[in-house]
Amino acid sequence: MVSHPLDFQLQAGFYATPELLAVFDEKRKMNRWLQVEAALARAQAELGVIPAEAAREIGDRADLDHLDLELIKEGYRQSRNSLMPVIKALRAACRDDHGQYVHYGATTQDILDTGQVLELEEFLRILYRDLRAMENLLIDMSRAYRDTPMIGRTHGQQALPVTFGLKTAVWAGEVRRHIERLKSLYPRVTVGQLGGAVGTMAALGPRARETAQRTMELLGLQWRPPAWHTSRDNMAETACFCAILAGTMEKAANEIFLLSKTEVAELAEAPPGSMMSSTMPHKRNPVLCQRVAALARQIRSLAGAVLESMAHEHERDPRLLWSEWLAMPQIAIYTGTASDCLVRVLEGLIVSEGNMRKNLLLHKDMVMSEWLLFRLAPGMGRTRAQEKLHALLPRAGGENIGLRELLAGDEEIGPLLHAEDMEFLDHPERYTGLAAALVDDTLAEITAQRRNDPEVLRG
Amino acid sequence: MVSHPLDFQLQAGFYATPELLAVFDEKRKMNRWLQVEAALARAQAELGVIPAEAAREIGDRADLDHLDLELIKEGYRQSRNSLMPVIKALRAACRDDHGQYVHYGATTQDILDTGQVLELEEFLRILYRDLRAMENLLIDMSRAYRDTPMIGRTHGQQALPVTFGLKTAVWAGEVRRHIERLKSLYPRVTVGQLGGAVGTMAALGPRARETAQRTMELLGLQWRPPAWHTSRDNMAETACFCAILAGTMEKAANEIFLLSKTEVAELAEAPPGSMMSSTMPHKRNPVLCQRVAALARQIRSLAGAVLESMAHEHERDPRLLWSEWLAMPQIAIYTGTASDCLVRVLEGLIVSEGNMRKNLLLHKDMVMSEWLLFRLAPGMGRTRAQEKLHALLPRAGGENIGLRELLAGDEEIGPLLHAEDMEFLDHPERYTGLAAALVDDTLAEITAQRRNDPEVLRG
Amino acid sequence: MVSHPLDFQLQAGFYATPELLAVFDEKRKMNRWLQVEAALARAQAELGVIPAEAAREIGDRADLDHLDLELIKEGYRQSRNSLMPVIKALRAACRDDHGQYVHYGATTQDILDTGQVLELEEFLRILYRDLRAMENLLIDMSRAYRDTPMIGRTHGQQALPVTFGLKTAVWAGEVRRHIERLKSLYPRVTVGQLGGAVGTMAALGPRARETAQRTMELLGLQWRPPAWHTSRDNMAETACFCAILAGTMEKAANEIFLLSKTEVAELAEAPPGSMMSSTMPHKRNPVLCQRVAALARQIRSLAGAVLESMAHEHERDPRLLWSEWLAMPQIAIYTGTASDCLVRVLEGLIVSEGNMRKNLLLHKDMVMSEWLLFRLAPGMGRTRAQEKLHALLPRAGGENIGLRELLAGDEEIGPLLHAEDMEFLDHPERYTGLAAALVDDTLAEITAQRRNDPEVLRG
Amino acid sequence: MVSHPLDFQLQAGFYATPELLAVFDEKRKMNRWLQVEAALARAQAELGVIPAEAAREIGDRADLDHLDLELIKEGYRQSRNSLMPVIKALRAACRDDHGQYVHYGATTQDILDTGQVLELEEFLRILYRDLRAMENLLIDMSRAYRDTPMIGRTHGQQALPVTFGLKTAVWAGEVRRHIERLKSLYPRVTVGQLGGAVGTMAALGPRARETAQRTMELLGLQWRPPAWHTSRDNMAETACFCAILAGTMEKAANEIFLLSKTEVAELAEAPPGSMMSSTMPHKRNPVLCQRVAALARQIRSLAGAVLESMAHEHERDPRLLWSEWLAMPQIAIYTGTASDCLVRVLEGLIVSEGNMRKNLLLHKDMVMSEWLLFRLAPGMGRTRAQEKLHALLPRAGGENIGLRELLAGDEEIGPLLHAEDMEFLDHPERYTGLAAALVDDTLAEITAQRRNDPEVLRG
Repeated sequence: MVSHPLDFQLQAGFYATPELLAVFDEKRKMNRWLQVEAALARAQAELGVIPAEAAREIGDRADLDHLDLELIKEGYRQSRNSLMPVIKALRAACRDDHGQYVHYGATTQDILDTGQVLELEEFLRILYRDLRAMENLLIDMSRAYRDTPMIGRTHGQQALPVTFGLKTAVWAGEVRRHIERLKSLYPRVTVGQLGGAVGTMAALGPRARETAQRTMELLGLQWRPPAWHTSRDNMAETACFCAILAGTMEKAANEIFLLSKTEVAELAEAPPGSMMSSTMPHKRNPVLCQRVAALARQIRSLAGAVLESMAHEHERDPRLLWSEWLAMPQIAIYTGTASDCLVRVLEGLIVSEGNMRKNLLLHKDMVMSEWLLFRLAPGMGRTRAQEKLHALLPRAGGENIGLRELLAGDEEIGPLLHAEDMEFLDHPERYTGLAAALVDDTLAEITAQRRNDPEVLRG
Repeated sequence: MVSHPLDFQLQAGFYATPELLAVFDEKRKMNRWLQVEAALARAQAELGVIPAEAAREIGDRADLDHLDLELIKEGYRQSRNSLMPVIKALRAACRDDHGQYVHYGATTQDILDTGQVLELEEFLRILYRDLRAMENLLIDMSRAYRDTPMIGRTHGQQALPVTFGLKTAVWAGEVRRHIERLKSLYPRVTVGQLGGAVGTMAALGPRARETAQRTMELLGLQWRPPAWHTSRDNMAETACFCAILAGTMEKAANEIFLLSKTEVAELAEAPPGSMMSSTMPHKRNPVLCQRVAALARQIRSLAGAVLESMAHEHERDPRLLWSEWLAMPQIAIYTGTASDCLVRVLEGLIVSEGNMRKNLLLHKDMVMSEWLLFRLAPGMGRTRAQEKLHALLPRAGGENIGLRELLAGDEEIGPLLHAEDMEFLDHPERYTGLAAALVDDTLAEITAQRRNDPEVLRG
Repeated sequence: MVSHPLDFQLQAGFYATPELLAVFDEKRKMNRWLQVEAALARAQAELGVIPAEAAREIGDRADLDHLDLELIKEGYRQSRNSLMPVIKALRAACRDDHGQYVHYGATTQDILDTGQVLELEEFLRILYRDLRAMENLLIDMSRAYRDTPMIGRTHGQQALPVTFGLKTAVWAGEVRRHIERLKSLYPRVTVGQLGGAVGTMAALGPRARETAQRTMELLGLQWRPPAWHTSRDNMAETACFCAILAGTMEKAANEIFLLSKTEVAELAEAPPGSMMSSTMPHKRNPVLCQRVAALARQIRSLAGAVLESMAHEHERDPRLLWSEWLAMPQIAIYTGTASDCLVRVLEGLIVSEGNMRKNLLLHKDMVMSEWLLFRLAPGMGRTRAQEKLHALLPRAGGENIGLRELLAGDEEIGPLLHAEDMEFLDHPERYTGLAAALVDDTLAEITAQRRNDPEVLRG
Repeated sequence: MVSHPLDFQLQAGFYATPELLAVFDEKRKMNRWLQVEAALARAQAELGVIPAEAAREIGDRADLDHLDLELIKEGYRQSRNSLMPVIKALRAACRDDHGQYVHYGATTQDILDTGQVLELEEFLRILYRDLRAMENLLIDMSRAYRDTPMIGRTHGQQALPVTFGLKTAVWAGEVRRHIERLKSLYPRVTVGQLGGAVGTMAALGPRARETAQRTMELLGLQWRPPAWHTSRDNMAETACFCAILAGTMEKAANEIFLLSKTEVAELAEAPPGSMMSSTMPHKRNPVLCQRVAALARQIRSLAGAVLESMAHEHERDPRLLWSEWLAMPQIAIYTGTASDCLVRVLEGLIVSEGNMRKNLLLHKDMVMSEWLLFRLAPGMGRTRAQEKLHALLPRAGGENIGLRELLAGDEEIGPLLHAEDMEFLDHPERYTGLAAALVDDTLAEITAQRRNDPEVLRG
């Protein structure tokens, strides 16, 4: 029986990649807890807190493969503690009396928080890899379409020409900032937890800080005082980072969705083989883009739950902790999956430069109004030019008379415009300002920052 | 592999009851879709739209037990349509060419929306049952503790006496309003969907409306024109209802949590046998109350996602639809589970009338200040009484002199207070105003409304 | 100095109508508090709790015009209580010692909650009026455009024909449900508050319930036991109602915005005279639609704050109460303003039936694929028909050969299609299924419900 | 007429400090727009784009003091553009025809976004100052109460001893991380906007990039390509930063609120003179703490609106932009005000070490159970020790026999405990583990980071 779409077996993989699901799989999760217990025992043995023999035995048993799963299951049926049944099974699996040294001086939250950090660390590395792939695609697209003219739109209305490469360069710039954010977030998040019941480390003994330091070192994490049992700004920051990133991804997916509308048809998400609607075979639905947009809403909402779960009371507050623990894996899975979808969309994106041009020319007279205004301003004053254009433009096309004729026939304007100006009016694609230069600047800056990226995080 | 806590197999049932998980199980969900297809076929056969034989065959096959699950799985691997793989498997399972009449004239969203309505209908009936159980417990508690005095607190500070029964009567009143809301919501939500690709019913033929009517009748639902493919106010209302209800449940759970704090100790959640903390055996953690509070945060956040997913574009907008479809089952499961937890808390709640009295007497002089003010006002004017009390009260206790002595010794106040007044000062438990009468009024109103409740919804 | 856009003096009225701003004006708000105090005093005088003379004096003074505003201002500078400075000024303004009977036995929250109910009541009446106007416009539009064909779109792609009247009828249906919700919400919200410090009415004396009943009667409100100091489900329901309604309004505004895009141009928001962009005089920006969409986001977010502020602790919890009090007026103002904007948009909406037809014919071969499928199914089987069409359709247009020729030339399909079928292919506007009938059904149902509406709420 | 509590004149300053209100005052806001126009003109003059004389004139007039306010007011009455009426007034105020060079080649959003950056920059500097003051207070408290024992609580229940200084050190650590976040956020946010109508800078001419660079330099901001008209990750990051910070502040405020409850009484917010409740003079309400908690809810909700407003369509999307512009000032004002409130609370906080000790001793036998377990484990094995303690502890106190007697009398345990162990049982205040050392570590790290802080942001 499975009730959450993430875990559906028949309709599998609709809202998650297998790679991300594996990171947050229940057994992987519990094995991480066991891994933390093993690291703690080993660190305590090294420091003489518990017998070396016990630590070895705990290390050997610390995997669900060696434990009695039925015992764990039954334990959870009776207990409402998030960890104890697993601890008990590990203790039971240890030879002699070594099991008594399992979880020695630690508190449940120490183990679960450290486990959560380990899984988020895996997630962040996957995301880093994918964001860099996304950035790479966007850099290539920005170069390729650096000079490809298309109409820019504001308030939903055709406004002035841009280039498609400028649009993707804007996306690339955002993705770059997200990569920088991820890099600066990473060391704040990869801090393990070991504080004991109330954060004083009392039961961990006098060498508690060395124990914590060494335990986290074994796990590839950092440790820093004091305990963050009730300090969830690291988790809130991670959740918000995902929500902000989701906003960028939603924007790009949405833009592709919009530019794919039948009447616009400038872009198209490459369809997989079987995507034909059964009763409407003409439809090409931008399914992956829609998925990104749907996931963005979930990410945002769940990030809200994490923000709402920060104000822990006293030294532990499961009312908020459980809410955060419920939300974080979903946020990570959805964010990673949205990123994967968007990468696939960008990889296969169909760009119709022809339709871009067609739409650009749709109302070319209108589109050139700003250029005209600034072309005429030096000659007749901006104010006067604006008055004249406001009067002339609405008439263009409407009386079977084109804008060029109207302009030429105007006694004030006519003399100011040369033949090449008249011709320019037919080429809105030339009025892209500094678009190309801005693309170059943007890519140059990104490329420079990219050079400082490590191959893999933490590598 | 399972990645969402709802579906955890070892740590099962932490955030959901088995009953609710079953309602939203993937196979149940798909079987509901098949059930809708069967009902549609049967209705169409009755109306002569498709052959009766075909409808019978479809009806016979319309269950995952008869379908090729591998085919479905494979279908979903290739297709991004939410329903087609199931339809194809059903078609494939039908003898002869009957399969071609499956899903005749319908659109994917028709089936999935109707399926969602069917599962929400099951959920609402479970919730109705549990809310009435909750109300019943609260009625009994309000009667039992109608006159049990305890301190009321405002701004976190002890204020004036109330009775515990008044507190639970306030909760009972809220639960009753939620039941009334549920009853009025139910007919708005239990409306099936059958509009065809864009809501015109074009492919459903001229008798489309009769088809829709009859299909829904067979499913125990209603039908009403026009299609609500893009009208999600019913879903938003359901989600908001759950979020508001969650607010009430969180309040009650939180209040019990607060009144269980070690220093207050007026209430306690009855612990299950195995709840002792291993290293702190003295702890009695109000785990179910905490769970309700954690779930309330999730419900609220997900309801936000549903609200944010209302503004569908054009005739279908999966960017929003999928977001809603992802959120609704979780909202339902969490709401039903929170309700179940709270019922269990109330059933086993330990009420310490002794500690209530102890806390009430903690600062009895202070607590009686309002009574004193209104007792003295007729004699010396409210303004003067207030001045005097503001001066006297801070001195009470502080100089080894009690409030009674201070009052008796005051030349203005002393003469106004009789012996019985002085005695009353020692009995803040008598200063509960109309608490008991308000409990009676509230219960009377609830009981009257309760009489109009059907045994089961729709029964 | 004003810092919130609602109160901007130069850029006035951008996010609010003057009517709504007036409802929530600070002085009106305080005068409502005074009005509540006056009603309480009068009720207490009638019941013999305070002297009739005092009540008369209080009633005479209970308006900011009679009070010392500097005193109030100074009071708030020193006190953090939300009401006391006003009470003190009222007491000070009363002759003799009558002022001591002001606020007799009540608590601050009684007055502020009742004041909030009074202002929400005004808001709900305004909203009711405007929603009915909106519904009226939509009914008229649905009738006028009942048969106006346009393309329906799903997944952002052209799908099948609908009529514009069906689209507006769907909106009308939603607005009607919102009116019904408002009507059923109204009596739950218009309940005043009078419970005293902790809800026991202790200081209000033995006739407290009659006092409350009579006070609310004088204010045109209801009273019901027990106090709802900590029961905010009424406010949460109101906030959620606004958020759901905002979803509907955002949908309609967004749809108009989308259908106004330059490339679609089926609708246009009528521009006011001065709306020309200075440098792009060709632009016609759908500003009001955009405003509705912007406000919807604010409403939703603030409703979330209200939901998050339900779980009051103990007998009063200003951490949540102040959050709700901050949010509710904004929710009301934004909702009423969005409604006003949408009414104005609908009133002036420019509908281009020509462009609707043009877009509908853009890919008419494709658009007719569903019709063809169901036309051919009886003759050659649905499965086979689907296979053939999936093969033929992508070829149409692509090889300088139209769909009709391809169909006619196909040896299986050709014989099945008559001349009138071939002609029908050129008329996608005829393939609107039951659109017109569904409009009629919807309007009939709305009109029937509309007949039960009171002219004004509570009138 | 003022309708938002931020702008209330009588009840002024309830939710905002005057300093913050001034930053976001309407006139200051418009003057900032004028300041941006002046800087643009000056830069353009320097680069030879417009006449130097015009730039001087524009610079001289660019203040509301020189403009016709009635004209602006009237302009906004007719126009729905956010800026044009101000531009027009500035143009009108310029001598000769210099006004035509106002806003030369810029777009409305350029000016409003840059204005918003300027006001956020002011806000961030205020916040930086206050967070550092808050940190300072917390450092002092952590030192002062480094060894002050109090009971730690988990699940709302007394658990084990901590020190009050450890609690405040945890807060200090969080505040430090927020200061670091603010410092890294600051350069990302203080980037001005100048891209022209669609971000190509077309109308700004060939030297547009130099113009932008110089304009921002004049304003004390940075400029970076490309335009961020549709890239709102900077605003979302700022909003989320505020929401995360609000979570920390809410936590601290809430903890003080909780520890001030009458039954706990370990802390108290110092009351202002006039805070006595009129009818309950014994009450000391922690009003500022409550205010922080109320504001945190608003900040979070509005940050959600900003996140929800990221996915801009095309080259400008006022549906989202206006939503962001509405939300950001409120987020800033509330965050700055919450910070101010918390600073005031910390400055005046009353710490009752006596009550801390009293509560710590309330159940000292119970509280020492963890210590006992780890004390006995080496001698008898952890498992056996746990069994024995689970059996013994519930009997302590219950049969008129203390824990010490029970332990001494136990034949297994008795021999293992020495006299000093028995004595230690009476001193839970000694069982604070490494609390003091963790405080020292934390303060050392903070102090080191603090050394790298600039006195004020930006030099």
